[in-house]
Amino acid sequence: MHVQSPSELSEGDPFGAATLPYGIFSTPDAPDRPRVGVRYGDHVLDAAAAAAAHGSVHAELLAQPTLNALMAAGRPVWEAVRREIRGWLQEPYFLPLDGVTLHLPFEVADYVDFYASEHHATNVGRIFRPGMDPLTPNWKHLPIGYHGRAGTVVVSGTDVVRPQGQRKAPDAELPSFGPSLRLDIEAEVGFVVGTPAPAGTPVTIGEFREHVFGVCLVNDWSARDVQAWEYVPLGPFLGKSFATSVSAWITPLEAFDTARTAPPERTYPLLPYLDDSAAEPGGIDLRIEVRINGEAVSRPPFASMYWTAAQQLAHMTVNGASLRTGDLYASGTVSGPEPDQLGCLLELTQGKGPYLADGDEVVLTAWAPGADGARIGLGEVRGRILPARTA
Amino acid sequence: MHVQSPSELSEGDPFGAATLPYGIFSTPDAPDRPRVGVRYGDHVLDAAAAAAAHGSVHAELLAQPTLNALMAAGRPVWEAVRREIRGWLQEPYFLPLDGVTLHLPFEVADYVDFYASEHHATNVGRIFRPGMDPLTPNWKHLPIGYHGRAGTVVVSGTDVVRPQGQRKAPDAELPSFGPSLRLDIEAEVGFVVGTPAPAGTPVTIGEFREHVFGVCLVNDWSARDVQAWEYVPLGPFLGKSFATSVSAWITPLEAFDTARTAPPERTYPLLPYLDDSAAEPGGIDLRIEVRINGEAVSRPPFASMYWTAAQQLAHMTVNGASLRTGDLYASGTVSGPEPDQLGCLLELTQGKGPYLADGDEVVLTAWAPGADGARIGLGEVRGRILPARTA
Repeated sequence: MHVQSPSELSEGDPFGAATLPYGIFSTPDAPDRPRVGVRYGDHVLDAAAAAAAHGSVHAELLAQPTLNALMAAGRPVWEAVRREIRGWLQEPYFLPLDGVTLHLPFEVADYVDFYASEHHATNVGRIFRPGMDPLTPNWKHLPIGYHGRAGTVVVSGTDVVRPQGQRKAPDAELPSFGPSLRLDIEAEVGFVVGTPAPAGTPVTIGEFREHVFGVCLVNDWSARDVQAWEYVPLGPFLGKSFATSVSAWITPLEAFDTARTAPPERTYPLLPYLDDSAAEPGGIDLRIEVRINGEAVSRPPFASMYWTAAQQLAHMTVNGASLRTGDLYASGTVSGPEPDQLGCLLELTQGKGPYLADGDEVVLTAWAPGADGARIGLGEVRGRILPARTA
Repeated sequence: MHVQSPSELSEGDPFGAATLPYGIFSTPDAPDRPRVGVRYGDHVLDAAAAAAAHGSVHAELLAQPTLNALMAAGRPVWEAVRREIRGWLQEPYFLPLDGVTLHLPFEVADYVDFYASEHHATNVGRIFRPGMDPLTPNWKHLPIGYHGRAGTVVVSGTDVVRPQGQRKAPDAELPSFGPSLRLDIEAEVGFVVGTPAPAGTPVTIGEFREHVFGVCLVNDWSARDVQAWEYVPLGPFLGKSFATSVSAWITPLEAFDTARTAPPERTYPLLPYLDDSAAEPGGIDLRIEVRINGEAVSRPPFASMYWTAAQQLAHMTVNGASLRTGDLYASGTVSGPEPDQLGCLLELTQGKGPYLADGDEVVLTAWAPGADGARIGLGEVRGRILPARTA
């Protein structure tokens, strides 16, 4: 059932030999045997089969039903496996992408969501806290973040049922209950931790590459009406916890080495643990596209983010918190300075809506420049809204 | 190496035959074989050994290195196992408690922390947001909560290293970095989910007993200076995520059937999914004691909580969020109306300190009334503060 290697990739295919993202797939003839695959064009390399056939020492890692064992193995193994996979691209271990089932690629340990776009935080602050300074006094001194619900992270392609919850109109005396009337998206970039870190040993900015395995797209679905009513004083909870969608493919961090960019200039000097002036450029020139029902509605530029993924990791661990394999942290909504670069409907419609309707399908895609005109892709995140399940 | 059954428990021992909490223990001769034990007085019943000797159908569940398999098995199995254990109390499968090592009893899936004491929320609101209404407008309409870091939940007895972080004095122009100067405790009661619930099917108040396996004590360590600077607008993050301590023992929910109490009268009518007026009484008459360096500093009454654990579970799932075996949710700081009933130093010292010093040891204990004068105990939560690891 395997096919020959895909003969030719179209020019600019974001899943060429410089990308090679990892995922977990199964086939109709062996639905109970999910295993590691690598995307190449519109095919999947059966990495488990190739590794077994070659007697690779990594065959067991690649036969697992999640990426966690590979992710826990650490950067030297990640690089060795990537070299092996490059050597298998001309061999007959490919399956057509549309013939396989893709699974949640890793078991999520903790999920943290940041808030790292100055444009997004400013726009949202204006809408949620009118008349006040849109950026809180702490915003430019630390990457603000919070923990989300790991158990409701789902893989791209999973339908999202419209959540129900409490919301209160500003002029209403009491809250009411029902399906969210302001269901929104948040286009984000996620970073997946491979190598764990014990409690009490903060991860420095320079150690970022040792701990982060790869990158994915994230749609942090948000019920704005629920969120607005619940979030003071302890932050977002049910407005977010019903579902968070991630790519089926995790692109290795090093694939973006050609796309590193300097983050924006900082307004204030940073405390030493966040100071990245001597480190490799912390930004990534990822160009995201948001499509709703096939229509491109926004193109958020990830390079515009104020806080970088390395700074976020340093911040998350500076208090001594440990890292586990499978920890996922997302950038927060990516919004650029222009009206067609905003990462959520709240901003795109200036708080007025319309928001998502039942049946709407949202697709996020992204790519970054590689060498010689190549494109480095992130796996898409696709999700369709189903009507609320009212009793 | 097993001993005969403990002959006599002292009167009022909170770990008598009506309590029988579950934990995970190992012995010095088999440190790599953690397994299920049941506390009885100052002994541990080796439930794995007893089950194997009796050919119990539950022997495999009791030989596991965490409680998760037992917890996932559901209430009929929980009740059958509890009956079997009662039958083994006169048999020679006991070990002295001080000769075993206790482990984190379950693998934590998601960790949610609520904020359910009206007294605590009012006191904290006055200190953190002076001049404003101490309770936010949503507080009496929904149980406010947020997700915490599951990966840093530790078992009682684990030392806690003083966290470092950013904090800003009100009169300072810029934040500074260093060891927390306001390290605090939060005395809470935790509920552990056994039976999972799929996405999209809210758990009603009446289904609480089917999903919650047991109860423990929680010390939600809090760096108040870090928290105060970071928590607007997305809630607590690094001020909490360095460590959360839980009991080594999980007391089955049904052990508290004799201690159920009606929650306080509600100020506003509740939305139907939170209305518990027709349900079993949602409160539990648990009397907590907080000791610091051996001295009792507070006795918070859990019966005074405004929101019940059943309401919290209904709220947490009403948006369609799934539950996983191992989900832990805590009540929030338990504080009563009296000055000697406050569950954290922030309240006990009216925001002035002193807070915890290096070397301080905090112990939380709790019991509830059983039948005929018996006491039903929660496992203690013990933790000692180690100095910050400054570079």
